[in-house]
Amino acid sequence: MTRVHNFNAGPAALPLPALERAQRELLDYDSTGMSIMEHSHRGKAFEAVHDEAISLVRQLLDVPDDYHVLFLQGGASHQFAMVPLNLLPPGKSADYILTGGWSEKAYQEAGRVGTVRIAASTEVDKRYTRIPRQEELQLDPSAAYLHMTTNNTLFGTQWHWLPDTGNVPLVADMSSDFLWRRIDVRRFGLIYAGAQKNIGPSGVTVVLARKDLIDGGRKDVPVIFRYATHAASNSLYNTPPTFAIYLVRNVLAYTVETGGLDEMERRNRHKAGLLYGAIDERPDFFLAPVENESRSFMNVVFRLPTEELEKRFVTEAAREGMVGLAGHRSTGGIRVSIYNAIEVTSVERLVEFMKAFVARA
Amino acid sequence: MTRVHNFNAGPAALPLPALERAQRELLDYDSTGMSIMEHSHRGKAFEAVHDEAISLVRQLLDVPDDYHVLFLQGGASHQFAMVPLNLLPPGKSADYILTGGWSEKAYQEAGRVGTVRIAASTEVDKRYTRIPRQEELQLDPSAAYLHMTTNNTLFGTQWHWLPDTGNVPLVADMSSDFLWRRIDVRRFGLIYAGAQKNIGPSGVTVVLARKDLIDGGRKDVPVIFRYATHAASNSLYNTPPTFAIYLVRNVLAYTVETGGLDEMERRNRHKAGLLYGAIDERPDFFLAPVENESRSFMNVVFRLPTEELEKRFVTEAAREGMVGLAGHRSTGGIRVSIYNAIEVTSVERLVEFMKAFVARA
Repeated sequence: MTRVHNFNAGPAALPLPALERAQRELLDYDSTGMSIMEHSHRGKAFEAVHDEAISLVRQLLDVPDDYHVLFLQGGASHQFAMVPLNLLPPGKSADYILTGGWSEKAYQEAGRVGTVRIAASTEVDKRYTRIPRQEELQLDPSAAYLHMTTNNTLFGTQWHWLPDTGNVPLVADMSSDFLWRRIDVRRFGLIYAGAQKNIGPSGVTVVLARKDLIDGGRKDVPVIFRYATHAASNSLYNTPPTFAIYLVRNVLAYTVETGGLDEMERRNRHKAGLLYGAIDERPDFFLAPVENESRSFMNVVFRLPTEELEKRFVTEAAREGMVGLAGHRSTGGIRVSIYNAIEVTSVERLVEFMKAFVARA
Repeated sequence: MTRVHNFNAGPAALPLPALERAQRELLDYDSTGMSIMEHSHRGKAFEAVHDEAISLVRQLLDVPDDYHVLFLQGGASHQFAMVPLNLLPPGKSADYILTGGWSEKAYQEAGRVGTVRIAASTEVDKRYTRIPRQEELQLDPSAAYLHMTTNNTLFGTQWHWLPDTGNVPLVADMSSDFLWRRIDVRRFGLIYAGAQKNIGPSGVTVVLARKDLIDGGRKDVPVIFRYATHAASNSLYNTPPTFAIYLVRNVLAYTVETGGLDEMERRNRHKAGLLYGAIDERPDFFLAPVENESRSFMNVVFRLPTEELEKRFVTEAAREGMVGLAGHRSTGGIRVSIYNAIEVTSVERLVEFMKAFVARA
């Protein structure tokens, strides 16, 4: 078996030890004589896995007691609707900051549920190459909440500061940079993250939510869409995606074993540093559209002088076992996704390849 | 490794060969150097798995071309809201037949979305022990749809005929008996089924929907909740639960290899026959609450003379490697779930145990 260097944007690479653990236990979980996915979601075996996953999130992020940790289905796209269905009552308005395709989608979906307002946008000619500054934000002090996307996978930008929202709850889509480093959870009213980039397979979404915020949420929507429903049943109101939660558990346990989020941040900064270093060394060849202060540590995007060269780059890299490097179909170019599971050695290998590619181009 | 006889009600046992295939491929799918769950949902590897899963559903059920086959998230509880959000416009009413706890939940959730009506209920003292007859149905000929639950896991009843609804579309929750045998898909407007009983792990839901019905669905709801959205993108509007779909593919491929649905029905009828045979042999000891014509081939429920005996039954069976036999927490008693993946030999083993238990009780 040869594993490739997987730079996919999501679903993305997972830590090999987390997968190996799943493989070992797949037919017989903890000597129970069945797979964890064959266990009842209300039985002791899954309960222990589920509780451990929640407690690992709490431990890694130091989540305060007055926040729920939920595992839901449907991904960020589902949250785009669920957030306003819970937090945006008729008569109120919600603020959205647009920094890329995902925040646009969140804004549009919320607009189908209630009244929304753009608090800032860095869009120029359908492209976003930077994060706004605090002074650019036109915040509504009576907004139901302010929504932001902390990392933008398509355009390779990332927030490296947090807006000051006063009393307005901050709601963040962290799907593509959840757990890349520590954050201060108290700054947020609600955080959601599809698992399939940094912490697991697709099919499960982590939600951290301030209890008073969701307990006071709207009651005029179907019960299945209410955060309060899931919070009251510890995410067991309906059958959860048990195997996906089990894999998240494996990934988080491995994260703790290998040094937790301080070590994770150190590694992630090192990986991004290697790549941006290689880019900045040849700015004539590797064209980085993103302004320096807005560069993402998760998705490094750049263009080459011609589309022909970009195609060759992707093809030749694949031949050397480095895959997932083509930019999003809406943006083109090259995108290197270096989420938590990507090893430093994979990035070193890619940087060598980049240097050799320039030399022979 | 010793695998137990797993009679869980859901998530439930899966065919061992489908799990073994997943185990073999878990770190390196089809020599691609990564797990199928690390592949992009828009890449060739997952596309082939996804297409195969859809085509296996089409093949097994002979699904007509004018029906979509979708894989969604959220389980049946999510469909309880999604069905009326799509098919129940303001000004119309929908009919619900109540045959158990799940149909009650579907009815209640739809009532939060629009106007609903009970077309029939077989509830007596909070219990349901039979399926209604056609002459008991009070159908609204102008209903937006008629909703039914084809198999009732809590009470062990199952429909063995289909209501004549005239021009009213029939919508069915088949979560607990999907693919237990062939059905005539044309009799339904929409079918949905959470995978975790008969065809896969939790976290994915199959939807079969007549194209004209969902293409004409409501447009005043969030895009993520519209069937038409998912149909237009072949279930790839947002990231699907890729590994769950892969496992469904494995289960369905194995179903075809082992004789398809004709053989499946034969085995399922044989298994249920063995169990009901043992029950009917000692009606003084195995108290079957369900009327004969409404008995489920998926969930066989019975009571013993005392709760004390029921507890002993569950405990002693577990000691002999037969697990998941306690009834639902809301009903008590014994429940034997014998979904597609349960081997005849497991049922034979349980029947032997039942006979020995009576003998020594």
